[in-house]
Amino acid sequence: MKYDVIIIGAGAAGLGAALYSARYNLKTLLIAKEFGGTGNIAHRVDNWIGEPGVTGIDLMNKFIKHVDEYKVPKVEAEVTKISKMSDGSFSVKADKTYYGKTVIYSLGMKHRKLGIPGEEEFSGRGVHYCYTCDGPLYKNKKVAIIGGGDSAGWGSVFLSEHAKEVYTLVRKPFMRAEPITVSQMEDSPKIKIKYNTEAAEFFGDTILKGIKFKSGRTMKVDAVFIEVGHIPLSEMVEPLRVKRNDHRYILVDNHQRTNLKGFCAAGDITTRHTLKQFITSAAEGSVAAETVYNYLKQNKW
Amino acid sequence: MKYDVIIIGAGAAGLGAALYSARYNLKTLLIAKEFGGTGNIAHRVDNWIGEPGVTGIDLMNKFIKHVDEYKVPKVEAEVTKISKMSDGSFSVKADKTYYGKTVIYSLGMKHRKLGIPGEEEFSGRGVHYCYTCDGPLYKNKKVAIIGGGDSAGWGSVFLSEHAKEVYTLVRKPFMRAEPITVSQMEDSPKIKIKYNTEAAEFFGDTILKGIKFKSGRTMKVDAVFIEVGHIPLSEMVEPLRVKRNDHRYILVDNHQRTNLKGFCAAGDITTRHTLKQFITSAAEGSVAAETVYNYLKQNKW
Repeated sequence: MKYDVIIIGAGAAGLGAALYSARYNLKTLLIAKEFGGTGNIAHRVDNWIGEPGVTGIDLMNKFIKHVDEYKVPKVEAEVTKISKMSDGSFSVKADKTYYGKTVIYSLGMKHRKLGIPGEEEFSGRGVHYCYTCDGPLYKNKKVAIIGGGDSAGWGSVFLSEHAKEVYTLVRKPFMRAEPITVSQMEDSPKIKIKYNTEAAEFFGDTILKGIKFKSGRTMKVDAVFIEVGHIPLSEMVEPLRVKRNDHRYILVDNHQRTNLKGFCAAGDITTRHTLKQFITSAAEGSVAAETVYNYLKQNKW
Repeated sequence: MKYDVIIIGAGAAGLGAALYSARYNLKTLLIAKEFGGTGNIAHRVDNWIGEPGVTGIDLMNKFIKHVDEYKVPKVEAEVTKISKMSDGSFSVKADKTYYGKTVIYSLGMKHRKLGIPGEEEFSGRGVHYCYTCDGPLYKNKKVAIIGGGDSAGWGSVFLSEHAKEVYTLVRKPFMRAEPITVSQMEDSPKIKIKYNTEAAEFFGDTILKGIKFKSGRTMKVDAVFIEVGHIPLSEMVEPLRVKRNDHRYILVDNHQRTNLKGFCAAGDITTRHTLKQFITSAAEGSVAAETVYNYLKQNKW
């Protein structure tokens, strides 16, 4: 039994790929450890057009239900190994081994966490990992953002357009963000950069109330955004010699093709979009299905 | 009064751009002759993930309602001229003249029509212009597709995976589609190519029942797909010297930037996606908003 396409990962990209693969009438298999992926944890999604304020889990369930209408077989298991076979197709090892003529790899990325007390507890209730998604919720509030790189810098500027006060908390005595971004931060009356500042704990009751620092001081905030990096889940493609950039995101062209024939990648894991959102991920997944379909029809990569 | 961004066209791309522009807190104006655009006429949309079977007009109304939550000002008028001002910003002439620092151009394309009796009458009720969207509705049915180019060829193959019989009706004595596609069509037991065949009229009662040809013969079909080309609505960018390809689609990079500083394009009108769908258009609109935001912050193009 060989599938036309095995889709690995079932966030917005994988589910978008599954929908379009099914519509292209490809024999499709969808494998994921968790259906819905990291989308499930978004407590409020305001940027999926047409669904203001939907919860992440409700949105992902709508996606899954739609894919289910096409009776795409789903396997809930973690993929541990992908191999290229001598005939050019792929074997994918999860709870057992599956075979596919092509693969769409859409495992996404994890937000790097601080690993401090309260982080898990207040996640989605004051502690956030996506300022574009959750920043606008804190209009005229006092917020903090933790990190010293470009994302923390851009996030500070973004948040300053919604919040009343933005505290950028930087562990080191300087920021690694681009100088122009740091200038913008310094020019903003709303943004205050605090160097040499490291969070030790988040506190609150049912929602976040503030941050305790390593120094022992505390600060009351309505929300804290953590921007200390992402971890793309791309280790598995290394033995396949699929090319990645320096940050380990998978290099794809405008058709989601990697350098490996028959192997597409889609969603947060790729280099295609700097705007990593449900909408761009779902689009990438759809395009990957188109590409796989054309490849199977024409054997051109 | 100068807007940060003027978005022209309010289909999936323009509305996606408006949502993200508003979320970036840009002073945004949305101008369109018809809100919802050509999306409004899709009688059944099955490929917007999460909303199986929604009508085009319901889906577009959900998009519009979402944008309305951000109080983005909307002007219902036809844009007739866009000019670049000496300071690098733009004037946009519609019911009156509006000024914007940037423009997102998302006017989309029109499906070329045959202009024969019954075409309008049965549109959406047997006469269709998007096989990817509406083809899967005709499982095990008898369908026809009109056209001789690549789209008609790909459409025939696509439809053959759903329908029982596919008649490809070609006006000329040959197809212009790629030879490999024509071979696939010839190899399929379901596809029959009829050359020198020109439709004269569509007939039916409340829904389409068949086609009358110029020869006088008739053929009963459950659906007909018209793939005789598209007209990108890009004439207005010509005086701005915005670069287009040979088919008059606007050339954009991965950030939806055209060659003209401050001028983005998004959606069906661009060269970015061969898969021209709601999902890819909405993604392009969102990315265009990101690009405009970054441009306004950093003055880099």
